[in-house]
Amino acid sequence: MKMRKICVFIGSRANYSSIKSAMIAIQNHPDLELLVILGASALLDRYGSVAELIKKDGFKVDEEVFMLLEGETPSTMAKSTGIGLIELPTIFDRLRPDVVLTVGDRFETMATTLAASYMNIAVAHTMGGEVSGTIDESIRHAVTKFAHIHFPASQDAKERIVKLGESLDSVHMVGCPRIDLVAEIINNASNELNILQDDGVGSKIDFDKPFLIVSQHPVTTEYGHGEKQIRETLEAVRKTGMQAIILWPNSDAGAEDISRGIRKFREEGCAQNMHFFKNLPVSDYIQLMNRTACLVGNSSSGIREGAFIGTPVVNIGNRQNRRQHGRNVINTDYKCSEIYNALIKQIENGKYPSENIYGDGNAGNRIANILSSCSWSIQKVISY
Amino acid sequence: MKMRKICVFIGSRANYSSIKSAMIAIQNHPDLELLVILGASALLDRYGSVAELIKKDGFKVDEEVFMLLEGETPSTMAKSTGIGLIELPTIFDRLRPDVVLTVGDRFETMATTLAASYMNIAVAHTMGGEVSGTIDESIRHAVTKFAHIHFPASQDAKERIVKLGESLDSVHMVGCPRIDLVAEIINNASNELNILQDDGVGSKIDFDKPFLIVSQHPVTTEYGHGEKQIRETLEAVRKTGMQAIILWPNSDAGAEDISRGIRKFREEGCAQNMHFFKNLPVSDYIQLMNRTACLVGNSSSGIREGAFIGTPVVNIGNRQNRRQHGRNVINTDYKCSEIYNALIKQIENGKYPSENIYGDGNAGNRIANILSSCSWSIQKVISY
Amino acid sequence: MKMRKICVFIGSRANYSSIKSAMIAIQNHPDLELLVILGASALLDRYGSVAELIKKDGFKVDEEVFMLLEGETPSTMAKSTGIGLIELPTIFDRLRPDVVLTVGDRFETMATTLAASYMNIAVAHTMGGEVSGTIDESIRHAVTKFAHIHFPASQDAKERIVKLGESLDSVHMVGCPRIDLVAEIINNASNELNILQDDGVGSKIDFDKPFLIVSQHPVTTEYGHGEKQIRETLEAVRKTGMQAIILWPNSDAGAEDISRGIRKFREEGCAQNMHFFKNLPVSDYIQLMNRTACLVGNSSSGIREGAFIGTPVVNIGNRQNRRQHGRNVINTDYKCSEIYNALIKQIENGKYPSENIYGDGNAGNRIANILSSCSWSIQKVISY
Amino acid sequence: MKMRKICVFIGSRANYSSIKSAMIAIQNHPDLELLVILGASALLDRYGSVAELIKKDGFKVDEEVFMLLEGETPSTMAKSTGIGLIELPTIFDRLRPDVVLTVGDRFETMATTLAASYMNIAVAHTMGGEVSGTIDESIRHAVTKFAHIHFPASQDAKERIVKLGESLDSVHMVGCPRIDLVAEIINNASNELNILQDDGVGSKIDFDKPFLIVSQHPVTTEYGHGEKQIRETLEAVRKTGMQAIILWPNSDAGAEDISRGIRKFREEGCAQNMHFFKNLPVSDYIQLMNRTACLVGNSSSGIREGAFIGTPVVNIGNRQNRRQHGRNVINTDYKCSEIYNALIKQIENGKYPSENIYGDGNAGNRIANILSSCSWSIQKVISY
Repeated sequence: MKMRKICVFIGSRANYSSIKSAMIAIQNHPDLELLVILGASALLDRYGSVAELIKKDGFKVDEEVFMLLEGETPSTMAKSTGIGLIELPTIFDRLRPDVVLTVGDRFETMATTLAASYMNIAVAHTMGGEVSGTIDESIRHAVTKFAHIHFPASQDAKERIVKLGESLDSVHMVGCPRIDLVAEIINNASNELNILQDDGVGSKIDFDKPFLIVSQHPVTTEYGHGEKQIRETLEAVRKTGMQAIILWPNSDAGAEDISRGIRKFREEGCAQNMHFFKNLPVSDYIQLMNRTACLVGNSSSGIREGAFIGTPVVNIGNRQNRRQHGRNVINTDYKCSEIYNALIKQIENGKYPSENIYGDGNAGNRIANILSSCSWSIQKVISY
Repeated sequence: MKMRKICVFIGSRANYSSIKSAMIAIQNHPDLELLVILGASALLDRYGSVAELIKKDGFKVDEEVFMLLEGETPSTMAKSTGIGLIELPTIFDRLRPDVVLTVGDRFETMATTLAASYMNIAVAHTMGGEVSGTIDESIRHAVTKFAHIHFPASQDAKERIVKLGESLDSVHMVGCPRIDLVAEIINNASNELNILQDDGVGSKIDFDKPFLIVSQHPVTTEYGHGEKQIRETLEAVRKTGMQAIILWPNSDAGAEDISRGIRKFREEGCAQNMHFFKNLPVSDYIQLMNRTACLVGNSSSGIREGAFIGTPVVNIGNRQNRRQHGRNVINTDYKCSEIYNALIKQIENGKYPSENIYGDGNAGNRIANILSSCSWSIQKVISY
Repeated sequence: MKMRKICVFIGSRANYSSIKSAMIAIQNHPDLELLVILGASALLDRYGSVAELIKKDGFKVDEEVFMLLEGETPSTMAKSTGIGLIELPTIFDRLRPDVVLTVGDRFETMATTLAASYMNIAVAHTMGGEVSGTIDESIRHAVTKFAHIHFPASQDAKERIVKLGESLDSVHMVGCPRIDLVAEIINNASNELNILQDDGVGSKIDFDKPFLIVSQHPVTTEYGHGEKQIRETLEAVRKTGMQAIILWPNSDAGAEDISRGIRKFREEGCAQNMHFFKNLPVSDYIQLMNRTACLVGNSSSGIREGAFIGTPVVNIGNRQNRRQHGRNVINTDYKCSEIYNALIKQIENGKYPSENIYGDGNAGNRIANILSSCSWSIQKVISY
Repeated sequence: MKMRKICVFIGSRANYSSIKSAMIAIQNHPDLELLVILGASALLDRYGSVAELIKKDGFKVDEEVFMLLEGETPSTMAKSTGIGLIELPTIFDRLRPDVVLTVGDRFETMATTLAASYMNIAVAHTMGGEVSGTIDESIRHAVTKFAHIHFPASQDAKERIVKLGESLDSVHMVGCPRIDLVAEIINNASNELNILQDDGVGSKIDFDKPFLIVSQHPVTTEYGHGEKQIRETLEAVRKTGMQAIILWPNSDAGAEDISRGIRKFREEGCAQNMHFFKNLPVSDYIQLMNRTACLVGNSSSGIREGAFIGTPVVNIGNRQNRRQHGRNVINTDYKCSEIYNALIKQIENGKYPSENIYGDGNAGNRIANILSSCSWSIQKVISY
């Protein structure tokens, strides 16, 4: 029997940790062949060298697509999608995958999805059916309307995909592949924290004392407000007096606003207990989530991995709007005082018990097994 | 009060007749300003010079976007969308519309929709919520998931949009603007048939005798089968012995297959009672639909305008799959004998009574009025 | 020793016959590996299926690049070059050629040249140093300024390249590879004319009687005048009363004007002794040049192959402006009466003696040998 | 009489200071209308906000073109040119300039030049005819072969353009517009140094004591060596013990290498007497050149402005290869010890007498006057 070729597109460091366990399972499956395309910020040094990480993890990269137009405005975000759409069809024509597996809801996902579906290649989609803020909310559901095979991460998400008119037998609740990694790292006693603090800049963090993590990304639908938004967060963090790790934002429209906010804060000398990282190895990040006094910002990791790990989380603003979350999350507005109060509450509470909302650590294998055996129809038909 | 700027993107001759009455109403509305972008096949001579038509109708064209990559394959269809996505943001940055009004479900609609929504410009969408075959089925529902204001053409479509999770107060059942034109043309006694047969090639048609119309477009999800498909149709038409008007296909992937099929048929000398048009003025086309013994192929006009006019229609294959239709339509497979039998049945039946499924002729005014007064939230939130 | 990888880009049917003999020689050379990229009009059915021809001739096509934006205006010609420039670097990154061999002076040549030279890949260029009209004149010399290895086709051209500041040891006068093909076809007694007249449309040509060939392409720097220009030619041809083969124009800006001129002429019933071809196999074309009473238009083949074959040629307008030609050519303006008089003169003169201006039939082998042994410096230095 | 529309494309901060005096003269000329397009790094915050500077100087920006693809590799440099080539024709179609005035030899210049010349718009070119290293050497001469009006900055350059086959009456030796600015700033007594050291990062510079300036850009034809190259320079600078201003590199392929070299040097704590600027206002930069003990690196400003000002310069490597320079320049290889020795020699020598090699401060007015009255032929003809 001919092996099915499964092509994974990785467009960012977040993408990679969201699909890594599925990639391993596909690579190890006797009836599947794994093809890997790296694109967008995954290729760029300034967002942390994902390319090298992927190669170090033993994956062969079949194609690279430079597609990020400089500017980080809503307009360049659209143009970058366009550049992807010009290059990806040539790549799909060459690789001829049976299925293109695409992750989540970032803007470049739209390029992968359109290229594949216009070319009558089956699209498989992870993390569909969830709800959130930003343009991601629209992208995610639009990808669902193009996708032929759905791999939602939660029961809630599965039900939403079915309501969107997808046929029940194309929707497979598998859990989130990111939780697979989390489970492995958390359960692996030999995993030690090996952060090289030289990788970032700023004050040294003493990991034996309590520390905060800040991870705040732009909200594309609130473009232009990022600098003020991050400022509120950083002020609240400083007010706690606790040492903190600050992560640079992803490459969405508005990233430059947030970066500027961080730079100014630092240049004003306000960042005395803070250490800044461009990127962290996933395993380090998960272990930090396992130890931190509180994760603050708007990263989906707080909601998703946080539920499983039990990390105390202060989730700010609309980016994770209505995404299903566990007891570990306190939501706040972009307001220093609110954020500060929530931080204090979480610091006092400490770690929460683990919840299985986003999976049990076995999503990757389920995805590979389903991809090896499922059938689909290229012509989609809405169920109502 | 500042006037709202409504920007209409027209990507093909079909697009234009689908939105013309709304454009007139917007242009005449005291609180609205009309902006017009022409793109894709609307700019190209070989698909009939839509550009000149639009200017003749009294509209100013603000921007032109060449975006069709030659090839007419699924891959160039994706790349063309990408080229549109590179250019449209620059144009939107310049025009700064309040709302981008986009039509239907063609591949270039995706470029307009993504560019506008990524840039936080409200997207209004006509003809959403319907069902059909080809990639259009996925495009249409994906556009719905990006759109902020919905203008479905039928009750059935309205309900489907609400089921897709759109908030009820963003969905306005207005009817189809194409029906507005149809009503005007049909009701206008002075409208005479002024087809210049010199515009096309082939045998002269005697419009005082019964004649057929063939309008068959590629089905992207059945790419590569077009030549055989049109052959079956043309054979069936020839078998009736009736004179026929043949329209060239649109620019979707697979158009070249259908064109080749038509050319070969003609070069073999089989097209003796046939006249070939690249394009017809809308008013002529509607009057021909009002007089023809039967319209055969897979054009949506058979379903939509056909219901209102009462045109006998033989609808072939999957392109209009499950789209709501009236009693005037007989569905068949791509099979000469089936098509022939349906043709004979329709010729014998003659004209059907008018049905209002797709509107009452007042959609354009409703659209302009709603656009002048409605509010919307850029951050979309699914209703379940 | 590692084999040198030589990558040939073919963008049109004319490109292919201009480089075919070099491709054969490279393929057969023990120290060279041939890589082939097809792009632009070479991929398109409507310009004659070059892709199939190349495969039939035994070459493997490594990459295909759809890059022609529809419109055939000066503006789309520039945009098409841009699309090529987006895709070609990805392709060169994958193929990693040592040398990119590019042909002549068409607009897409600029894309190949820029992509390769920006990426520090050596550029080898055939047919540089000649003079002509249209934008080709600028493109040709600009490519020379980027190229590292020059293969001019004539002594005259070689001297011009040296004057342009190229170092003498990078300029190799090899003759024109198109003449290699001509020599082979002309000398090969068994070559019979096997034109399938069914491939084109129009009247049948009786090849035992005298016939004319018309091959007229757009002049980009005279954009908008093509319809009138071809009209003058066709009228002059008709006036001779001689049967004629008419070739459709290439894809430069303005092609649609010329095509429209041809179509109208035909639809007015003026084309009674004319047969129209989209494309001809090279061997047929050469044999027709060997038999025709006169070749009329502005094709470079009249100048180049014509000198070797001795074909009587009427060369119209500025397209071949100042290109070195033999005694076989009469130059005229775009004027029916002038063209007619020149036609009559050439018909009466008959065939001319062969001249070796553009080579002796051994260019391909010379190119392959030089490519296998030459050295170059990526950093170019002008000689004065 | 209709005013001539002159469209200037500005792609970087260097571009702007190279053309500013001509822009002023064009804007003030009664027969000329100035159009301004900003593109490439001129739009990007991270290269210093040129956009705001231009607006502050009183120019209206007509169009903005985001065209830099992230990556800063040779491959993205080619792709960025392609993106420019897709957008610029639309812009030229809208602005309809009579002349496009383009500056120098950066990769985006090629996009402007090709778009304009393919569209039969006259191209005027400043700074042609010079010699240097990197791909700029090829770009500069290729642009000359497309340009219709030449504005060389030196006699040497003028002669080279004529040798390249350009007709003598199209070549106007006007001097370099950058020198116009330099003359004005140097001669203007009231000009005070108003550098806000807060704009950059690092140690404070005491401008009353001797200081060095480092300005080193990537050499595209030596891609991959930048980190090592800048290291040698920085070590030599440190060895002098003198305080130094370090400028970040431009956006050419390889910029990331140099930036990384600088960052590492700083993070190792070696940058104790150094201050880092992303960008400097031209007037500050010129005044710094007027005061510095020595300018070191490979910036063309050392050669060009340096000759006029008399700045001691250590010019490293091949970037300015063979460009005509004055007595103020010492050339060295990328070698710490060589650079150090040259630095010591220049520091000891002090300021040099002014030389007029690149103009007398009146280039801008000459350019405007010539543009208002000159004629040209769109069809270029090489002079030999």
